[in-house]
Amino acid sequence: MIKLYGWWRSLAAYRVRVALNLKRIAYEEQMVDLMAGEQLTKDFKAINPQAAVPALIVDEAAPLTQSLAILEYLEERHPQPPLLPSDPRARARVRSLALLFAADHHPLITPRVNRYLADSLGADDAARAAWSRHWLRQSLEQAQARLAADAASGLYCHGDCLSIADIALTSQWLGARGLGCDTRDLPVVSRIADACLKLDAFARAHPLVQPGAPQRPNASSAS
Amino acid sequence: MIKLYGWWRSLAAYRVRVALNLKRIAYEEQMVDLMAGEQLTKDFKAINPQAAVPALIVDEAAPLTQSLAILEYLEERHPQPPLLPSDPRARARVRSLALLFAADHHPLITPRVNRYLADSLGADDAARAAWSRHWLRQSLEQAQARLAADAASGLYCHGDCLSIADIALTSQWLGARGLGCDTRDLPVVSRIADACLKLDAFARAHPLVQPGAPQRPNASSAS
Repeated sequence: MIKLYGWWRSLAAYRVRVALNLKRIAYEEQMVDLMAGEQLTKDFKAINPQAAVPALIVDEAAPLTQSLAILEYLEERHPQPPLLPSDPRARARVRSLALLFAADHHPLITPRVNRYLADSLGADDAARAAWSRHWLRQSLEQAQARLAADAASGLYCHGDCLSIADIALTSQWLGARGLGCDTRDLPVVSRIADACLKLDAFARAHPLVQPGAPQRPNASSAS
Repeated sequence: MIKLYGWWRSLAAYRVRVALNLKRIAYEEQMVDLMAGEQLTKDFKAINPQAAVPALIVDEAAPLTQSLAILEYLEERHPQPPLLPSDPRARARVRSLALLFAADHHPLITPRVNRYLADSLGADDAARAAWSRHWLRQSLEQAQARLAADAASGLYCHGDCLSIADIALTSQWLGARGLGCDTRDLPVVSRIADACLKLDAFARAHPLVQPGAPQRPNASSAS
């Protein structure tokens, strides 16, 4: 059995859940409460010295970490259904879009950054929420600009086939919506997110249906 | 001819220069001054709507963006010498280390974040320098913890073969050293960075030997 160390609110763990679901790989998830600091314990740092989720245990070997590295691993070990196109240039486009979300923007709203803003820069709750909304929103704006200007966009980020770019897009979209960002002026991004969220693999991975999530959708606030 | 839009101080452009050099691919680089805001012009946003470097033009086709996506593209199109191992688990480890630097930490010290800290959070020069040093240093500390605890580490991040992890490590190491971070207590990271920096492909890509760089090494401050 594959074991995922994740958390209901983690957008990075969400990306791994979606990919596992799309590839029909069974797994069990152990929740690591990042707000309670469970990632900072000695036991968890033995699993991931970076003190972050996700970490994926496959074949009882050393943990795999970093959501995009895990998605690439799953793609290489379980190629069907593909989450990357076959042409190198198309693969580069998909990876670039995935990195727009998962590298350029998501790290800015993680708990460690939130703590630094509070403790070292004295940012209060409102300032930290504005910070998160700014970067979540910017990632979607940049994606909208890229996707709308590019004929390679389709039903999904790259043509009509799901890819890791759609998984990354949807994770940031959930984060943005959870913090109340308006997305009505971002039609391509919203359309792709809507299409993904209707799929069973995405629905089962949704933060709010994971153990530990609050009962009411309006309590959502992803990390 | 391959054209790279970069900047002497950009750590992400540095990663692309190193990979191009290692794979002996000829290119010309056009510098985009991120501190002067040249990335925000309409002309440059037509090249990269994300208003960031690097962007790589190959075969006069649509620009490739995001340093790690570009490195993967170069690996697929020009497999020799390899910058990823062949085994999926080893590839996942290398990609995870590369993402530690290029995703988890480098985006935090980019010009757009620097501007937000100044304009919206009122962080002064000293606070912003401390911010950059904190995340540069943390990336190296986390890498030290991971590399020192793992028998898969070797002369380089993964055994004795260069990989994209070493390119990403060296970029952050240059950023950290440029801002005066002490790295003496990080022996594995320092040893790998030293080994890489002695190689011709890394030396020719060094920020301080690019057009526009200051004459004196102590003026270094990477982005």
